[in-house]
Amino acid sequence: MLNYNNQDNWPNNFGQQQSPINLISHNANFHQINIPFKITKPYNFVTEKDDQTTIKLLGNGSAIIFNRPFQFIQTHFHFPSEHLINGTTFPFEIHLVHQNEIGQTVVISLMVSLGDSNSNIQSVIDNFIEKSAKSIKINQLDWIPDNPTGYHYLGSLTTPPLTEGIEWVIIDNPKLTISMKQLNWFETHFKPNNRNIQSLNHRQVHLYSN
Amino acid sequence: MLNYNNQDNWPNNFGQQQSPINLISHNANFHQINIPFKITKPYNFVTEKDDQTTIKLLGNGSAIIFNRPFQFIQTHFHFPSEHLINGTTFPFEIHLVHQNEIGQTVVISLMVSLGDSNSNIQSVIDNFIEKSAKSIKINQLDWIPDNPTGYHYLGSLTTPPLTEGIEWVIIDNPKLTISMKQLNWFETHFKPNNRNIQSLNHRQVHLYSN
Repeated sequence: MLNYNNQDNWPNNFGQQQSPINLISHNANFHQINIPFKITKPYNFVTEKDDQTTIKLLGNGSAIIFNRPFQFIQTHFHFPSEHLINGTTFPFEIHLVHQNEIGQTVVISLMVSLGDSNSNIQSVIDNFIEKSAKSIKINQLDWIPDNPTGYHYLGSLTTPPLTEGIEWVIIDNPKLTISMKQLNWFETHFKPNNRNIQSLNHRQVHLYSN
Repeated sequence: MLNYNNQDNWPNNFGQQQSPINLISHNANFHQINIPFKITKPYNFVTEKDDQTTIKLLGNGSAIIFNRPFQFIQTHFHFPSEHLINGTTFPFEIHLVHQNEIGQTVVISLMVSLGDSNSNIQSVIDNFIEKSAKSIKINQLDWIPDNPTGYHYLGSLTTPPLTEGIEWVIIDNPKLTISMKQLNWFETHFKPNNRNIQSLNHRQVHLYSN
């Protein structure tokens, strides 16, 4: 199992474009439009998996992201957040992984604040506890804002093989909250699974907000 | 200097998505449209460099490639070709390297056949011999077909650090030829600089042709 207390010994032959990073708004290249991200076939969450360090939901669906079509593949959860925004860690981060026809990967990341209980995350928890085969009911429209704003940069997978060339879209305006009770459930069943912040190096981060 | 006779000892910690590859039309996923590639600001070739293994021309210009804006950065030459099409090696291959705002790379590759002398390549040769500071006159419209057709896949740089996540567009219908005399000039001044063919592994190649 991946040891988050021993990250220096993770296999990593890559270099200069790793994730996660600390996203700093005043250093970002600003674009006065929202993130071009539109779901074209509703996301469907089919199978729930115990991924040892987190829960992973395999699914399907499609979207147009920065003018190119992508398939939704899977979602999984990190706590606390892997990305930081202006130095702030969020309690929870949702990764929605997409691929296009030549295998390029875009991860849409949703930052989750502490607050009210999240009914979709509660469905994930209940389904995990019951190990039921019933499908997971998540309304992805509850997760993704109508007019997403946030960050765009080129990075890597945050778990080995830490492959680079991964396109990241970090949505910073979700309506999403998670309750302390739900967070506690994750912390009881899994260990914290956030990779350390990596150096930006020569990368340019872009901020989209209308 | 990079030794093309000792490629097994090139540093390469990457794995499954390397370039070049042999592009096989009947195994490709076919799309009955031309490659979506449109130059939006004419390519300008500013500086010519002796890159030890080839000639590199730094430049500028811009294009829309698969619906996303890219800047043209540089072009350089390989002989014989690095990519194969249906097992066929071409005598010469031109790489036009592009980057977008987050640093994603697309290489547009032009396969060149043996035939008449190419006046643009002759300008490159003459300028190299004279080591003149005068700007290199290349009409990129002579190079890029109006209705480009060819292959699209995800690979790597073909020289160390052999970085993966590089998007390749191999145009298979250029009007481009190079003469035996011009090829001989390259072979006299440089050694053959084609990287060996790499395994396709689980990648899907896409073929665009209307």
